[in-house]
Amino acid sequence: MTVTARPADLTGGRPVVPSRGALRPLGLAEVRITGGFWARRQQLIGSATLDHGRLWMDKLGWTGSFLRDGNANADRRGREFTDSEVYKLVEAMSWENGRLPTPARDREITELTTLFAGAQAEDGYLHTAFGGPGQRSRYSDLSWGHELYCTGHLLQAAVARARTTGGDELLEVAQRAADHVCDTFGPDGPAIVCGHPEIEPALAELARVTGEQRYLDQAALFLRRRGHRSLPPHQFGWSYFSDDQPIRAAHTFRGHAVRALYLAAGAVDVAVETGDDELLGAIIEQFDHTLARRTYLTGGMGSRHEDEAFGEDFVLPSDRAYSETCAGIATVMLAWRLLLATGRPRYADVIERVLYNVVATSLGDDGRSFFYANTLHQRTPTAVVPEDQEQLGFGGGPRAPWFEVSCCLGNTARLLASLSAYFAAVDADEVHVFQYADAEVRTRLADGRPVGLSMTTAYPDSGGVRIRVTETSGGEWAVALRLPHWASDGATVTVNGQPQPASGDRVVIRRPFRAGDEIVLWLPMRPRFTHPDARIDAVRDCVAVERGPIVLCAESPEGSIDLDRVRVDVAVPPADYATAAVAAENEKNPEQSTVSVSAVLEQTAAAAWPYADAAASGARTPTSLRMIPYHRWGRQGPATMRIWLPKT
Amino acid sequence: MTVTARPADLTGGRPVVPSRGALRPLGLAEVRITGGFWARRQQLIGSATLDHGRLWMDKLGWTGSFLRDGNANADRRGREFTDSEVYKLVEAMSWENGRLPTPARDREITELTTLFAGAQAEDGYLHTAFGGPGQRSRYSDLSWGHELYCTGHLLQAAVARARTTGGDELLEVAQRAADHVCDTFGPDGPAIVCGHPEIEPALAELARVTGEQRYLDQAALFLRRRGHRSLPPHQFGWSYFSDDQPIRAAHTFRGHAVRALYLAAGAVDVAVETGDDELLGAIIEQFDHTLARRTYLTGGMGSRHEDEAFGEDFVLPSDRAYSETCAGIATVMLAWRLLLATGRPRYADVIERVLYNVVATSLGDDGRSFFYANTLHQRTPTAVVPEDQEQLGFGGGPRAPWFEVSCCLGNTARLLASLSAYFAAVDADEVHVFQYADAEVRTRLADGRPVGLSMTTAYPDSGGVRIRVTETSGGEWAVALRLPHWASDGATVTVNGQPQPASGDRVVIRRPFRAGDEIVLWLPMRPRFTHPDARIDAVRDCVAVERGPIVLCAESPEGSIDLDRVRVDVAVPPADYATAAVAAENEKNPEQSTVSVSAVLEQTAAAAWPYADAAASGARTPTSLRMIPYHRWGRQGPATMRIWLPKT
Repeated sequence: MTVTARPADLTGGRPVVPSRGALRPLGLAEVRITGGFWARRQQLIGSATLDHGRLWMDKLGWTGSFLRDGNANADRRGREFTDSEVYKLVEAMSWENGRLPTPARDREITELTTLFAGAQAEDGYLHTAFGGPGQRSRYSDLSWGHELYCTGHLLQAAVARARTTGGDELLEVAQRAADHVCDTFGPDGPAIVCGHPEIEPALAELARVTGEQRYLDQAALFLRRRGHRSLPPHQFGWSYFSDDQPIRAAHTFRGHAVRALYLAAGAVDVAVETGDDELLGAIIEQFDHTLARRTYLTGGMGSRHEDEAFGEDFVLPSDRAYSETCAGIATVMLAWRLLLATGRPRYADVIERVLYNVVATSLGDDGRSFFYANTLHQRTPTAVVPEDQEQLGFGGGPRAPWFEVSCCLGNTARLLASLSAYFAAVDADEVHVFQYADAEVRTRLADGRPVGLSMTTAYPDSGGVRIRVTETSGGEWAVALRLPHWASDGATVTVNGQPQPASGDRVVIRRPFRAGDEIVLWLPMRPRFTHPDARIDAVRDCVAVERGPIVLCAESPEGSIDLDRVRVDVAVPPADYATAAVAAENEKNPEQSTVSVSAVLEQTAAAAWPYADAAASGARTPTSLRMIPYHRWGRQGPATMRIWLPKT
Repeated sequence: MTVTARPADLTGGRPVVPSRGALRPLGLAEVRITGGFWARRQQLIGSATLDHGRLWMDKLGWTGSFLRDGNANADRRGREFTDSEVYKLVEAMSWENGRLPTPARDREITELTTLFAGAQAEDGYLHTAFGGPGQRSRYSDLSWGHELYCTGHLLQAAVARARTTGGDELLEVAQRAADHVCDTFGPDGPAIVCGHPEIEPALAELARVTGEQRYLDQAALFLRRRGHRSLPPHQFGWSYFSDDQPIRAAHTFRGHAVRALYLAAGAVDVAVETGDDELLGAIIEQFDHTLARRTYLTGGMGSRHEDEAFGEDFVLPSDRAYSETCAGIATVMLAWRLLLATGRPRYADVIERVLYNVVATSLGDDGRSFFYANTLHQRTPTAVVPEDQEQLGFGGGPRAPWFEVSCCLGNTARLLASLSAYFAAVDADEVHVFQYADAEVRTRLADGRPVGLSMTTAYPDSGGVRIRVTETSGGEWAVALRLPHWASDGATVTVNGQPQPASGDRVVIRRPFRAGDEIVLWLPMRPRFTHPDARIDAVRDCVAVERGPIVLCAESPEGSIDLDRVRVDVAVPPADYATAAVAAENEKNPEQSTVSVSAVLEQTAAAAWPYADAAASGARTPTSLRMIPYHRWGRQGPATMRIWLPKT
């Protein structure tokens, strides 16, 4: 079988390659993260996370499931969606191998591909839990079987492989699987959908890699078929599957957060490829609504444990926050697509918020542990999880090496391995820099002129970003720098020492650049209080502290301070460094920079009944409360924590 | 088989008959509710609820499951615990038939008993989902099989039947089942427990009915065996099953609320019967902690949807309140046992709160619909549920005629049919009146003297209660009247027109009563603001309004007023009647009495991101907000609702 891949797609390692849109994405070969916050995490993925994932998937038999024979079918271990975890791991390996190729990793991908190929049926169907002897028949449980969901992740793995090393056997396996899906669910097929969206963006991307219109048509067909309640009734309601109303009729994301966001990502892909501005507009509206009313301060989405779902508007409890890691990653996927389609820097703000406050929070310092859910308030000290113990189910609890549902590991790995591709983009003659990090950008403008930038910064610990032009071939072009919304007042920019106006959501510096030209951006990084919308009951009369893109939290090791007694005095602005000793400590561990706020500890009385004729107010002891970046919490053993603190 | 029942237990219809304790309970024959709030609901149970339950259970095949043969086993419908619903219905029918006997109801109970007897195995085992041909084997799934839970409800049904009509075939079936349990799980049996407690109080009560020590010993053994993590690990944790720590070691109720409360009720029974004050003290402490930190203003328990569980201390969200109806009923069961054991009126306060604000809220006006969960804040208008549609699963949503898990119907029916037995008790020479209603009490003091009281009141709409002595045979005796904690300041009592001191948690009037003596109690019923403990984040800076035992709420039909914009001015006390028209309306429908509070409607701005540098405060329009009893909400079609309202 010959795979027809469009050569342009097979280089550079871009996760999303729309054929139209406001911006052209850059790939791993064009943007490299060279140091700092995200480089440390990329290094962790490559040195620890991928192998950790492989180890557990072997140990639990998830890779072994692909060794199909009559006996193995009955003994298959794990839930219906474990195939997808193996695919996601291979996708992450592929990006990592694109970023930093090694023969060993390349071989590992090839070996796993052989495993997949061996398990694939003659007609292209590939799922280890269905269709074999003694197993349930194919597509017999659309709601929960996760068959098309798994296929979607297979396709995305193949796309990553193709875009980093060109087509190989994995792309062939994926294309056979996609052909099978089109054969089975095409225009004459049954008008049903998979309970878990994912096949939609995957088919669209495979269409982009291969040029196969049929895959795009199938993605569009799945989108049209969803929302008509074709899935059987379930106690979570059709909204859980985004199957309650047609995608164009909805006004907000709802139901299971990851499902809703994956589906929206696929809808943007289809809208962009087919020029369907109505569909694109519907997703933009739904995302806007969701950001304004259903999103945590951290950028986390999905507040409900019961069904991993968005709550209703403004139902954003801190102490039972779900904010699933995978929902954060899906938000990045969606926001990136909308950024490319519209060019609005606001979507890069969302990406930054989620990266620093959801993704960075989830990942353990060892690269071998994860939060599945990212609570904003831990009331009792977190438990200690043994290294060799799988956590049953999913949901709350501390960072753990493994969950029965371990989607977050592969998802985090695939995002971080390809992270540099989300940092910059180009349009006709502008290079847009969206995320600030030590990084190198080398690309070509639309007219073919090569350009290069080198970025140096201690961001987000410091707000200074130095950008040097490293390559330019004459003529005018522009560098556009995102101004985060929290920096819209107070940012300064100089070009070769000359101040430039800086306001709004970006600064565009257009000139005939010369190599060595230097742009310096200063973003105001003083810590600030943030107040919630009055309709968020869960945090009424509370404040949070933010510093640049970082949300801070109060952490209490072993619950040593009763955080429920803290009341913050908002008349005193939060301060960067309380003492010289703390300042020195912050300098040593910049990622762990602390901020201090003025507060009181309020005495609480023991009452037999917690409701009374008068509002109680106990004695108050002034204190200076040290706050740490939220992403650092829970790393020094059992602790309580809260982001939102009541005001005095 | 001859059932040995102690004759004293076979009369009068008392749900709980401890052999020791501070108080002796009265039965359906000794206390009759003759009118008012609860009489209307008892009437509803008898005229609608029981038949409604029977109809659905026949329609869904839950009663049919007892017609066991080889073919039926495979086709059995419903979840593992449907047997228990049929038993609970028979228990409710038995109490109702004790309260108001009819030949038809008696025959119905007998017929259903014959059905149960036919399904019982030779060795006494009885469960329609296990052990038959093609079914899973007995006790193969202790966590979720609900086998002993169902047996427990069978036993409770038989106890109700025995205590209302004397022993019959149902008691024989129950005793065979109990013997089987003792044979299987006795001292030499496996050290395992059922995932859902219920067998414990049931065995204790059956021991009381039959005098069989073995049943009590088995209940005690199950209590000792729980808490040692004998159930397999589950994502909800062992606490879900109260199997995480021995019952004496715990300091609070935790995990699944109904399970924890049923278990505690059984523990009180065993503690009382065996004189185990340590065990009794442990339950008292756990209940105290739970009331102080894990209970809603309504008395509702269990805040979490995911696992129907208690949250951590002070995690009491209004908008995702679970507050399961059955947990309310289990709270009444437990509080009543503790009231009998200790004599502390505080437990009667708890019972009153739960009855008016959980049980009365759940039950629909037609007696054919129910809340499964009782939220304290409905943000979007409730849905309309078709009359013939079973709601899948359980959990949130509006009152519905039926849930896939329909435990609340039978539970509500069995409690309300036997409700009068919870209203009064006696000790040596005192008649304790705990709940105020139109009612007749006729009983004997410990020395055999007959006494009688007749109570007339419009409570809880009015605070006046007139109690006339209808029977007395000379000598001194006493009437003890509970003073609810909200009435501890401001209650007045007169005896034959002479004022008596009234303070603390009860008034005791001791004298040589004569027939016709009249006690008049006045409880202060002015509406009042109630403030939450500062540690309950979910309702920070909010107030609720209560009036007597009634929690009020703001309801907005079709969401016509945006309740999220209401801010209450607590400087102005809430008022009973805003206008003459409202006063007249209240008089016409006393149960629906409204209260008005001064409030403003605050303008809220649309923001793209709900977190900002400053706390927003919009324009405010003064308004008078009408509040209705919480138990009345959701009865006039789709509505939003909230109990806790932010302060200005």
